[in-house]
Amino acid sequence: MSEVTDVPIRTEPTAEPVPAAALTAVLDGRWASQREQARRIELRHREPPAFDLDTAAHRTRVTEQLRELGATGLPMEGFAAAVGGADDIGGGMILMEMLGYRDLSLMVKAGVQWGLFAGAIQALGTEQHHETLRRAVELEVLGCFAMTEAGHGSDVQSLLTTATYDPDTQTFDVHSPGPAARKEYIGNAARDGELAVVFAQLVSGGADHGVHALLVPIRDADGRPATGVTIGDCGRKAGLNGVDNGRLSFDHVRVPREALLDRYGHVAPDGTYSSPIESKGRRFFTMLGTLVRGRVSVSGAAQNAAKHALVIATRRALQRHQFTGAEGGGEVLLMDYRAHQRRLLPALATSYALSFAQNELTSTLHDLWTARDAGEPVDDRAQRELEARAAGLKAISTWHASATIQACREASGGAGYLAENALPQLRSDTDVFTTFEGDNTVLLQLVGKGLLTDYSAQFEDLDWRGVARFAAEGFVGAAIERTVPRGVFRRLGRGGEGVRDRVWQLGLLEDREKHLVETLASRLRHARSGGADSFTAFNSVQPHLLHAARAHVDRIVLEATLAAIDACDDPAVVGVLELVCDLHVLSGLERDRGWYLEHKRMSDRESKEITRAVDALCVELRPHASTLVEAFAIPEHWITAEIAQPDSAY
Amino acid sequence: MSEVTDVPIRTEPTAEPVPAAALTAVLDGRWASQREQARRIELRHREPPAFDLDTAAHRTRVTEQLRELGATGLPMEGFAAAVGGADDIGGGMILMEMLGYRDLSLMVKAGVQWGLFAGAIQALGTEQHHETLRRAVELEVLGCFAMTEAGHGSDVQSLLTTATYDPDTQTFDVHSPGPAARKEYIGNAARDGELAVVFAQLVSGGADHGVHALLVPIRDADGRPATGVTIGDCGRKAGLNGVDNGRLSFDHVRVPREALLDRYGHVAPDGTYSSPIESKGRRFFTMLGTLVRGRVSVSGAAQNAAKHALVIATRRALQRHQFTGAEGGGEVLLMDYRAHQRRLLPALATSYALSFAQNELTSTLHDLWTARDAGEPVDDRAQRELEARAAGLKAISTWHASATIQACREASGGAGYLAENALPQLRSDTDVFTTFEGDNTVLLQLVGKGLLTDYSAQFEDLDWRGVARFAAEGFVGAAIERTVPRGVFRRLGRGGEGVRDRVWQLGLLEDREKHLVETLASRLRHARSGGADSFTAFNSVQPHLLHAARAHVDRIVLEATLAAIDACDDPAVVGVLELVCDLHVLSGLERDRGWYLEHKRMSDRESKEITRAVDALCVELRPHASTLVEAFAIPEHWITAEIAQPDSAY
Repeated sequence: MSEVTDVPIRTEPTAEPVPAAALTAVLDGRWASQREQARRIELRHREPPAFDLDTAAHRTRVTEQLRELGATGLPMEGFAAAVGGADDIGGGMILMEMLGYRDLSLMVKAGVQWGLFAGAIQALGTEQHHETLRRAVELEVLGCFAMTEAGHGSDVQSLLTTATYDPDTQTFDVHSPGPAARKEYIGNAARDGELAVVFAQLVSGGADHGVHALLVPIRDADGRPATGVTIGDCGRKAGLNGVDNGRLSFDHVRVPREALLDRYGHVAPDGTYSSPIESKGRRFFTMLGTLVRGRVSVSGAAQNAAKHALVIATRRALQRHQFTGAEGGGEVLLMDYRAHQRRLLPALATSYALSFAQNELTSTLHDLWTARDAGEPVDDRAQRELEARAAGLKAISTWHASATIQACREASGGAGYLAENALPQLRSDTDVFTTFEGDNTVLLQLVGKGLLTDYSAQFEDLDWRGVARFAAEGFVGAAIERTVPRGVFRRLGRGGEGVRDRVWQLGLLEDREKHLVETLASRLRHARSGGADSFTAFNSVQPHLLHAARAHVDRIVLEATLAAIDACDDPAVVGVLELVCDLHVLSGLERDRGWYLEHKRMSDRESKEITRAVDALCVELRPHASTLVEAFAIPEHWITAEIAQPDSAY
Repeated sequence: MSEVTDVPIRTEPTAEPVPAAALTAVLDGRWASQREQARRIELRHREPPAFDLDTAAHRTRVTEQLRELGATGLPMEGFAAAVGGADDIGGGMILMEMLGYRDLSLMVKAGVQWGLFAGAIQALGTEQHHETLRRAVELEVLGCFAMTEAGHGSDVQSLLTTATYDPDTQTFDVHSPGPAARKEYIGNAARDGELAVVFAQLVSGGADHGVHALLVPIRDADGRPATGVTIGDCGRKAGLNGVDNGRLSFDHVRVPREALLDRYGHVAPDGTYSSPIESKGRRFFTMLGTLVRGRVSVSGAAQNAAKHALVIATRRALQRHQFTGAEGGGEVLLMDYRAHQRRLLPALATSYALSFAQNELTSTLHDLWTARDAGEPVDDRAQRELEARAAGLKAISTWHASATIQACREASGGAGYLAENALPQLRSDTDVFTTFEGDNTVLLQLVGKGLLTDYSAQFEDLDWRGVARFAAEGFVGAAIERTVPRGVFRRLGRGGEGVRDRVWQLGLLEDREKHLVETLASRLRHARSGGADSFTAFNSVQPHLLHAARAHVDRIVLEATLAAIDACDDPAVVGVLELVCDLHVLSGLERDRGWYLEHKRMSDRESKEITRAVDALCVELRPHASTLVEAFAIPEHWITAEIAQPDSAY
């Protein structure tokens, strides 16, 4: 907290008002029309669910909603034309993202069916699986993505379930050896799933070929568990109770040879194993790489849930008064309290920045995969980079959602605790996002690994030991590669002065990332040369590694924000977005100023100036608060919170 | 994140193992026997509730539990002997605190009935209300504490409900003028309440005498709303769904003159108003001051819910393995990952520190009120100080609970999201604690006000305008008053070296508090002399004020911890507690190091050393992790989480 008092905080407006629609256009970006389509989706069941809906009733409702959603045809568009899609990979992801504004149970249920289940068949299967894929996409068959086990979640490579090929019967024997091998938290398993994509160690000819995916029926025509399949129910959860998460165990279940999704690993009738990818490790990461889409969707949905919460809390803060202010001034609007502004506005600004990074990520994935599906050679390095970006942004977006929705809940007081005000549902539904589709801490380690190996080297075979060894031997320093065109940076002079100088801000983020990665490598080297085994060496720098990964994500988020502003030609809109960008980056620098100070990257004076600038920016953005949240353009009938209604008594 | 690599992190044990029971004795403190009694309470309904219990069923269950609890006679002990109590104020609060280990709905239901409803009658009523009090204590009548209104929560002084005295009928006319006057979030209102302590503006002889409390029947003998009373239901909430929160509106409801709880404000038959307290403002704060107990109980219950979560997450981290470590070393225990240690151990250490502060606060309140009830003169200054401490500790304890339970949830992965693992219930039940019994942000402002006025001056009449004026004129600087005996500090030499030097640590906290309060006053003075009206002046320093309040609480929490360690004569126990204290204070200094650095209170080298010390302390405390959580001595059958069971498959 700065106590410099010589300069009064500027209170006159520094940016002229703009229409919300102008900001919406910038936020919607490349897939604006798909977003508009999504906004027009009308489901028979309006959100939110009846608050006292029990688990069974909520599940039934969400399954009905899933079918209604399928009937719109929109979820199919992300799939290949060959199976009735429109080859619009990005558009399909945008739909998932937009569902984040509604009942998240529907978003996750849809994500399980189209994103994970059908997505895995499309990504890992071949021609022979197209009919199954079509049925999955058309909801003729509901399915599961059975990867996680009770004993192994993050460490997918060590799954215990086995699929052993028997040449005599030309079948695979799918088996769960013990309780730790039980497939766990599987969406669609407890109630609706008929078929599951099961990840198991593929054994053929006595050799283990690593984790592969197979199609395994889990229920018979009458909905009873298939022979040899035991189905459990995960029961009530903190949220997402419209999704039927369950448990699956297999007792020597036989499936035909064709059940193997064999794009990256094929088993001939005689049991001969073959794969287009030599290296076992690289094969594994290539298979997992096809699942990156799920992380991007979760990131986008989490961001939108946070935006929904910000709409609610901001509308309330612009309606509710508490305590009398200046003599004769009457009661004060919550949004006029400096502390309240600090609770909501920096989070609002960061929501904008993350949206820009999300748009860029979606765009990158769309272009890369569209080219790949068109038969163009895959740029391995670009794919690895995409995976690291998706992992990093998913982690930061989901933590941002948890913290922001929580802040909105608390800023709304007791009213924020009532189900009728939607915040509790948003909070509890999104809570699991920080640990599913990849635990955030593990995902950031993936990012850190990418930074250490600089994406370039082919490290699919390397586990942490390998990375530690690599860093200890050959590492030469992180290259900071910018994610947006040079031109953008040439135009940065447009930024403000002092701590609002964009070049200075970006320089700090780049410098921190570079320093953290280089020192990370030197610490690993030092630990190794000090005789520590590679795991101990890695473990001793784990918090440092996570910090480096965060620094990387912070930097690419700022770069995406700068690019979005740069692409905007309405000076008034740019004026507002520059303030938003300043508040986002400076509140982040304020949070991390301990590091910048102790590493002499920032002076005491600059550090205090940052705190003052954050205070000032809250005041400057205060007049735009309403416009900034309305620009999210959430359809009014999706915003059911009582306190967000114009006539609220709260 | 420090990258200094010259000093390897110490890994050999630095404290010998101690039995959990030895730590339990220190944690239980003065009311150890009452805690033991509470641990032996057996209710017919075991926690947790059936997870799919709907709101109605959960409410019924908790009401039954309330009666079972009443039958034990324990809740009565906190009340005066005159109404069948044991005059054990502290013991009564300890019971509430211990209920924090169980279904929080029961804790809150009990808190509403005995703490708020009966508590208010005891505190604000007189002889003539003793029979009602006895019936309330004995559960012959269930009641509400109807203070908060839809339009006014934090600003109690501006409540809209009126109680107008009519000398002709010698009755009060209780009335709610409009929807904003509706009593809101009132526990016991939706289902069980028969009688309510209603806070309203007392009007008599045409004059408004400010907020007073009256006993108003809200339901008739058949459980129907009493004439003129409209009862609403707050419905489903994020948590605490076993508590029937509701809404109350009064349409000119008549109650007899005796309904007024008239200890601090009496109305004679002819309508003449009299009070033992001249000043209207001071009278108001005196009435509110009697309610401080609720905040202390919420603080303690929140701390215990956090401990329960720590037991669950720590037991899991000591059972679950993920990823293989050093060559041939097999899979690694979660608790052996540095990042995992950092998620759990600092929070565990802070839970210890907060417990010691809680014990000291309870003890202070007990002694102060016991003396008061014995007729000794009330030390106004001590009472104000108590109120500020309770407000500050409640804010810090409840935020600590939210953050810690959340960290435990995430550290437990998908399993932490399942209701069967208890964490979701703990998280959602305690969530409202940050905004009820006083919104944390408002409470910290209360602490800040106390710091500015240094407790000493009689400021009951002063609102923020007054404080701002005072600070602008007469303020001379904050006196740091230590809360524990001098002797403790003479023995601090016992602490470690470098950043583990206790004198240095405490000096930093004292210095920061002093500096923040002094600069706060100078900023107010500066703003006022700059022509800002008092509200604008206050508002401009609001974040600074909140920071000063936090700094104050941090300091008294550390002092209480030092006193608890000092009072402990087993060197082995002291050895462990010194590490716990170091981790608590140093992780806090790490979090706030930005401020210390920018204010030159800490060198770059010391700052980096603190981060390294936190890493090292996690390693040093790792061998004690199990003992530290078992020392909370939560009865095993209260710990129902599947992942906390010794044979968990997760």
